[in-house]
Amino acid sequence: MPAFNIQNYLKERGSLVDRALDRYLKGSEKRPQMLYRAMHYGVFSGGKRLRPILMLAAGELFGGKHKLLLPFACALELIHTYSIIHDDLPALDNDDLRRGELANHKIFGEGMALLAGDALLTEAFHLMSRPQVVQRLRPKLVLEVMHEIAQAAGVGGMVGGQAVDLEAEGQEVNIATVEYIHVRKTGALILAGARVGARIAGASPKELRRISRYGEFLGLAFQIVDDILDAKGYGSDREGQGEGRDKEGKKATYPSVVGLAASQDRVRELLQHCLKEIEFFGRDADPLRGLARYVVEQVA
Amino acid sequence: MPAFNIQNYLKERGSLVDRALDRYLKGSEKRPQMLYRAMHYGVFSGGKRLRPILMLAAGELFGGKHKLLLPFACALELIHTYSIIHDDLPALDNDDLRRGELANHKIFGEGMALLAGDALLTEAFHLMSRPQVVQRLRPKLVLEVMHEIAQAAGVGGMVGGQAVDLEAEGQEVNIATVEYIHVRKTGALILAGARVGARIAGASPKELRRISRYGEFLGLAFQIVDDILDAKGYGSDREGQGEGRDKEGKKATYPSVVGLAASQDRVRELLQHCLKEIEFFGRDADPLRGLARYVVEQVA
Repeated sequence: MPAFNIQNYLKERGSLVDRALDRYLKGSEKRPQMLYRAMHYGVFSGGKRLRPILMLAAGELFGGKHKLLLPFACALELIHTYSIIHDDLPALDNDDLRRGELANHKIFGEGMALLAGDALLTEAFHLMSRPQVVQRLRPKLVLEVMHEIAQAAGVGGMVGGQAVDLEAEGQEVNIATVEYIHVRKTGALILAGARVGARIAGASPKELRRISRYGEFLGLAFQIVDDILDAKGYGSDREGQGEGRDKEGKKATYPSVVGLAASQDRVRELLQHCLKEIEFFGRDADPLRGLARYVVEQVA
Repeated sequence: MPAFNIQNYLKERGSLVDRALDRYLKGSEKRPQMLYRAMHYGVFSGGKRLRPILMLAAGELFGGKHKLLLPFACALELIHTYSIIHDDLPALDNDDLRRGELANHKIFGEGMALLAGDALLTEAFHLMSRPQVVQRLRPKLVLEVMHEIAQAAGVGGMVGGQAVDLEAEGQEVNIATVEYIHVRKTGALILAGARVGARIAGASPKELRRISRYGEFLGLAFQIVDDILDAKGYGSDREGQGEGRDKEGKKATYPSVVGLAASQDRVRELLQHCLKEIEFFGRDADPLRGLARYVVEQVA
């Protein structure tokens, strides 16, 4: 067995996701044209596809087929994309740039960017409930994972985290509040990615519990890494962050509360927890292992 | 059989919907508090519940139980509410008032209003996929109606209509474009309400075709009535419209293209089509008949 190469894995799975996303967007209506262009620009503007790749990796571990996993992996990416478009709007972070490119609303206008986000969120659920998807899986399982994804994206997850983040702006926050925000705002969708992949591939309850803990640790680690990179001034190329945003003291971040060194320690600790949870699966878990290391080694 | 009273029907079914909405919102997380309050304000700010009541009426016609219909009826109202909150934002219509009360963003701020809309859309799909809902119906049917609702709300429906509406701002439009916008922006969700009610209650394909045509005519009539009321200056108390918005020539409306008299003729004609489609069902269709007349008689 050759050594596992995470860069190759990210590239191969990333292009699988890209092709599927392109296919799904084309399958939906190309009209109205401006809305379609705004959606397409949002989806194809340099995202690393971490969430869908994580879902594929978790699914592959239990023998899940790409064909079955991709609709849900892509739905997760559509949800992530909508959250970024809305997050960049003047009503929230007011970021002109995203990954070094113009934000959606700087090209299509605020109104169209708002609608493109709304459309992407709606398309995510439209995609998961397509007859072609449903007929290949048990309908009850499809509903269960849709419910889980809606939970992770909604009040109890991503949007809830964003709302507390917004309320915390300019306020003194403690580490418990920062973790509350991180676990929901970023962690929930990453956890859902890992869990849904495993569920679709038929993981046992015990296996699913391991994957869940792995996903929880990874989700939190990911957001702390994001905070650290932003604090170091690498913000503009990262996912989920605008340029130098946190330096203005606008947001609740890990480094701003416990400092940079303690944040890095925490990330290394979370990586060890991640790796321990999947030790049980041996070499088959190399992709999950590689993903966790990939996320963390940017700062550790 | 006593004469059917539409006012009583609207009141009774409206309070049924209100109680269910309150229950569902409470069942979801009450934290984060500010987000919950913004969502609650949006849902309980004087909407007439036309879409969910229409779903109940279509379902009742085929013997559908309220218990089975209400989750989907409420999901439709959550989607309608999110669209109103986002529509009022400065990025789109920039309306300070909605039904005579302050718009969501005037109370909670633009960022929180944006998130409240996102949360309501997500909760709609969360609600429809709840285990309690799924176990009472065939999972495949649940997925089919969720897909239909996502279709009606997304690129091919409501959001698509809003996008074309936005593009048409300040431009000369013809009646075909106005109908394209109306059928999607307002019509799609009304049509989905009628169809999903009938499908959940087990309508036959032939019955469903009648209900579909009824819903199509009603959806278009509803938006033209909205246009007429706005042109007459009754805009601020209506659903889906801001104060005097259309008078500023900002939006593509029926009266602005064909005039007030021709618009009223068109509405009366659409009502006749509606009534003809459901003649077949006799007195059992009195609620659907009453709803159609109720919508139209405000202007005819």
